[in-house]
Amino acid sequence: MVKVSIMGVSGFTAAELIKIFSRHKSVTLKHFISRTKGVRIKSLHPSLNIDAETENFSKKIIDDTDVVFLCLPHTESAKFAIPFIEKNKVVIDLSADFRLKNANIYRKTYGVPHPAPKLLSKAVYGLTEFYRNQIKTARIIANPGCYPTSVLLGLVPAIKGGFAKKEGIVIDSKSGVSGAGRKLASDWLFSNVYENLRAYSVAKHRHISEIEQELNLLTGEKVNFTFVPHLLPVERGILSTIYIPMKKFVNEDAVFLYYKKFYENERFIKVLERGTQPEIKNVNRTNFAHIGIVVDRNSLTLIVTVAIDNLVKGASGQAVQNMNVIFGFEEGEGLL
Amino acid sequence: MVKVSIMGVSGFTAAELIKIFSRHKSVTLKHFISRTKGVRIKSLHPSLNIDAETENFSKKIIDDTDVVFLCLPHTESAKFAIPFIEKNKVVIDLSADFRLKNANIYRKTYGVPHPAPKLLSKAVYGLTEFYRNQIKTARIIANPGCYPTSVLLGLVPAIKGGFAKKEGIVIDSKSGVSGAGRKLASDWLFSNVYENLRAYSVAKHRHISEIEQELNLLTGEKVNFTFVPHLLPVERGILSTIYIPMKKFVNEDAVFLYYKKFYENERFIKVLERGTQPEIKNVNRTNFAHIGIVVDRNSLTLIVTVAIDNLVKGASGQAVQNMNVIFGFEEGEGLL
Amino acid sequence: MVKVSIMGVSGFTAAELIKIFSRHKSVTLKHFISRTKGVRIKSLHPSLNIDAETENFSKKIIDDTDVVFLCLPHTESAKFAIPFIEKNKVVIDLSADFRLKNANIYRKTYGVPHPAPKLLSKAVYGLTEFYRNQIKTARIIANPGCYPTSVLLGLVPAIKGGFAKKEGIVIDSKSGVSGAGRKLASDWLFSNVYENLRAYSVAKHRHISEIEQELNLLTGEKVNFTFVPHLLPVERGILSTIYIPMKKFVNEDAVFLYYKKFYENERFIKVLERGTQPEIKNVNRTNFAHIGIVVDRNSLTLIVTVAIDNLVKGASGQAVQNMNVIFGFEEGEGLL
Amino acid sequence: MVKVSIMGVSGFTAAELIKIFSRHKSVTLKHFISRTKGVRIKSLHPSLNIDAETENFSKKIIDDTDVVFLCLPHTESAKFAIPFIEKNKVVIDLSADFRLKNANIYRKTYGVPHPAPKLLSKAVYGLTEFYRNQIKTARIIANPGCYPTSVLLGLVPAIKGGFAKKEGIVIDSKSGVSGAGRKLASDWLFSNVYENLRAYSVAKHRHISEIEQELNLLTGEKVNFTFVPHLLPVERGILSTIYIPMKKFVNEDAVFLYYKKFYENERFIKVLERGTQPEIKNVNRTNFAHIGIVVDRNSLTLIVTVAIDNLVKGASGQAVQNMNVIFGFEEGEGLL
Repeated sequence: MVKVSIMGVSGFTAAELIKIFSRHKSVTLKHFISRTKGVRIKSLHPSLNIDAETENFSKKIIDDTDVVFLCLPHTESAKFAIPFIEKNKVVIDLSADFRLKNANIYRKTYGVPHPAPKLLSKAVYGLTEFYRNQIKTARIIANPGCYPTSVLLGLVPAIKGGFAKKEGIVIDSKSGVSGAGRKLASDWLFSNVYENLRAYSVAKHRHISEIEQELNLLTGEKVNFTFVPHLLPVERGILSTIYIPMKKFVNEDAVFLYYKKFYENERFIKVLERGTQPEIKNVNRTNFAHIGIVVDRNSLTLIVTVAIDNLVKGASGQAVQNMNVIFGFEEGEGLL
Repeated sequence: MVKVSIMGVSGFTAAELIKIFSRHKSVTLKHFISRTKGVRIKSLHPSLNIDAETENFSKKIIDDTDVVFLCLPHTESAKFAIPFIEKNKVVIDLSADFRLKNANIYRKTYGVPHPAPKLLSKAVYGLTEFYRNQIKTARIIANPGCYPTSVLLGLVPAIKGGFAKKEGIVIDSKSGVSGAGRKLASDWLFSNVYENLRAYSVAKHRHISEIEQELNLLTGEKVNFTFVPHLLPVERGILSTIYIPMKKFVNEDAVFLYYKKFYENERFIKVLERGTQPEIKNVNRTNFAHIGIVVDRNSLTLIVTVAIDNLVKGASGQAVQNMNVIFGFEEGEGLL
Repeated sequence: MVKVSIMGVSGFTAAELIKIFSRHKSVTLKHFISRTKGVRIKSLHPSLNIDAETENFSKKIIDDTDVVFLCLPHTESAKFAIPFIEKNKVVIDLSADFRLKNANIYRKTYGVPHPAPKLLSKAVYGLTEFYRNQIKTARIIANPGCYPTSVLLGLVPAIKGGFAKKEGIVIDSKSGVSGAGRKLASDWLFSNVYENLRAYSVAKHRHISEIEQELNLLTGEKVNFTFVPHLLPVERGILSTIYIPMKKFVNEDAVFLYYKKFYENERFIKVLERGTQPEIKNVNRTNFAHIGIVVDRNSLTLIVTVAIDNLVKGASGQAVQNMNVIFGFEEGEGLL
Repeated sequence: MVKVSIMGVSGFTAAELIKIFSRHKSVTLKHFISRTKGVRIKSLHPSLNIDAETENFSKKIIDDTDVVFLCLPHTESAKFAIPFIEKNKVVIDLSADFRLKNANIYRKTYGVPHPAPKLLSKAVYGLTEFYRNQIKTARIIANPGCYPTSVLLGLVPAIKGGFAKKEGIVIDSKSGVSGAGRKLASDWLFSNVYENLRAYSVAKHRHISEIEQELNLLTGEKVNFTFVPHLLPVERGILSTIYIPMKKFVNEDAVFLYYKKFYENERFIKVLERGTQPEIKNVNRTNFAHIGIVVDRNSLTLIVTVAIDNLVKGASGQAVQNMNVIFGFEEGEGLL
């Protein structure tokens, strides 16, 4: 049994991890690390059926851990990776801290110097479908952001397949409120979300750097795009509608077959039959991504829609998928 | 007092008209025309405080009417305009029947020959802010679709102002369920809408013809765009996010000031201060459109966001606004 | 034109007042009094079409005011009534401060001594339908709580009609989140309200004292009841389901006719036809109360259901209704 | 491996069963029986990760089945039990058909003669916590209704513990829309449920007979109660607020401890600490029931609140729990 510890237990991603691990047959949940010790997990997350409480960080915990999941805010997470890495443990970081390879871009994006720049080169970007081989031997997983997961799954094949122009790409994403974590701020009050929709961080969301980096690394191309996220009046789920100007007309069927083949060995990626569109409710509380393909002949645009659950494939589910790859378990263990 | 009749009373737009007219000081609601007579309006719309019942269509009703609002499905609406026009009454049609100038495009778009092609040339497209002068003397108002209203208000100034390229424009719209009318179909069941979002009619929605026609008529340009609507888990409200590739960089402030000036005399159009984004909840149950302006320098894209209530500015509110223009009332009468 | 000032402008009830007054033909909104001056009302409530800003409290404002609406939290509201009353102005207090006649019960219920006990005897409880005559000459209106409004409208006729036993009454109320005001607290986060329902303040809600007092004053009886409020995942609306053990069987029709007659002259109270139940959506954004009547022969229980909008009939709408009574306006002015 | 077949696959309860069985280690899903054959399960339930299709009912299927779950409407379900029982298979019926012991009460409640009256005596009411011993050897399980499950779990201990009077009990239940199954009817349209709440079947819901029967069988007492269900604007979840007049005052702690002891060996029943109330979101998508206890000294009323997921503990989860008991599996297998 692999010994798992979780650091930062009050948020949504920690709750989702605990739920997934309750169904994982090769894992024991050992330690719940928090600044405040002695808090019952059930009092933080009354929906979880678990009898355990928080502990303070300690060297003893490191020794008693095979893999730690960091569920901390960005800029606070990276420094806690250091002691685990020194003891040769596996670190899966759900924050943004290890996603950007370049410490300068990190500083520009997150406003502070990187807390552990020496570790950056050890981190593997944990979009399982694209980096499976590197993940197998990784010590640090930079678990991808929820928006980037949905965007890269939809956009990378279009570029690799040679369908996409390098500019004019538009990414219009819509997310439920849990994407922002469990914050007490006016923006997340029921009265400000219910029967509402608004764009936010228009063309300046932090995930833009992450998408840029990975599009470049994964395709070898430098592509230019606009990204606008919107806040949906739902708890969970992301739908990204990606508009890709085409180099030349290719009929919808050919694009569909290319995507189908691209993901044929991926159990968690479903390219939907033509005429069918992804829906948030069909992926919520699963680790699946659903992808829809439409070619608009009139505007020579390929429209790819991708739905995921931001807390599962966009966070904790993918984190466990990565752990399964590292430890040689069935990739879907705990996730089906 | 202007004598108003409403034809087709069971739907959302009729209910909204009745609510508006209860506050309109120069109008008497005279007749509620329906296939089934004797139905209490309150039994159809229990939220309305009105004591009246439906009547069958008759010549007597035409004589006792100054202006009729047609709240019927497209393809069924146009033929009922004929007898009112023959008696020199004003017709405000909330269906799509008089929006397209070209009967061939109508047939292609709605699948049937136009029911009253001779009247097409008499109809004025009722986007009040753009056609106010023609509306003043119109006998038939083709009240605009909800999506086109939101799109044209946001996109026309960008083209007229010379900011926009003629192609690569992307329109990503999101609408509450009332936009589809009061239909009993599986798609509108609570279980299929709640905690959900999906794109539909991707790049083939009927409103595309309407947007194309009006962009061309209003700007003299032929612009190419992609349009994808999405179904939001809310009752009301549209947010259209419009991505406009710019000919060359113009800074955000200049674009903002252009829009501000463009709409300076329009009481129902609010161009929001920079840094502020429109929200559906801020326009719902009002006749206002809120417009947000962002320039993404990185991708040279102007991002215009527009929020309206699909049942008010996108339907019944604008219909009354048009009536007010025709009869010389204060344009905001009943709408503020 | 009556000169109106509003004190405490950031909350839901102030916004609702402003919206109502925009349609009221005999009122001018003069002053928006706040601790912070110079705040644009539109920045607090972007959905309102109003061009004004906050001012600090001053004697000049009192002089320039005929009636002030206090939209302040309980325990903070009463002291601001004093200077207005001294200048012989009308005070309509939307907080709980003047509702309880007995300063001791106030202290027990709200945890602090009453801030203006000398004014208590001047205050009239503003449930318009029951206290219209006293309201006409009142200087201070204690505008009723949202739960008590729904409960008293449903329960008082049952007692006055002699149907009800004096004990065993159960009141199960359900309210949207706006009933709690605009608070930044974890309980009102979208994630804690969405797809949820919970009882709260079970059998110890502060409105119990208010209901007890008024049942006694209005019926002359001492009745015993249990009251449990629940938090609904909606923005607005209250439904109170009131279970009244009957002294002896009376058939449903007779009870219905009694209620119908009881409210026959009340424009805002609708006793629904038998077989029809009140729905929150049918009263939301109106000043109406809908009442449903069922007699359960098997358990000898009269089940009265009452729906109101907590922000309109349960707060600002009723406040304006009371103002209309005081100033001799049409009682529905601004409210229809 | 136990061979499971499901009859009636398009509804919510079948989908929930399939999801649960995907995690059950001792079960093979063999046949999906439907009137229409060849339908892909994924096309009915796109959120399920299953590759199978419907078959028509046949004798061969019976032979290849150990236990069949009937997910059919009441009045249609019972007759399909007969051929399975004749072959000595286990039948778990999620409809109401085998719940009432008395065929006359069935006819009165459901309006038709019972379709298989001879089997009635073989059926065991599948409220696992109360009938575990009988379930072990049962051939037919009458899986309880969702409302009765929530009500009996909360009310039976109060009666057995001697706290409750025999009359004056009030049960106010609130349920999400999935409780009504997947019906295409105006009542379940998004527009009629969103931002709404209404009581329905006031004091005449069909589950009243079921609750009456089981209260009597389980406690030996004849108790009188009023039951009113309400439709919540959510997909899933039931909260029942049960008001129980007490014979005499017993303090809250004593009642709490009694309940705690009553359920001490039940893994799926959680009696919440005093001061904590059940919330729908804490039980949704689990097989747990959460129970809250409050004693209102003033009205001498015990207020028990119970939350369950109507589709899990209130339907498919409990069905699998019963199957686990019958086949000697861990009772929580597939359900944790």
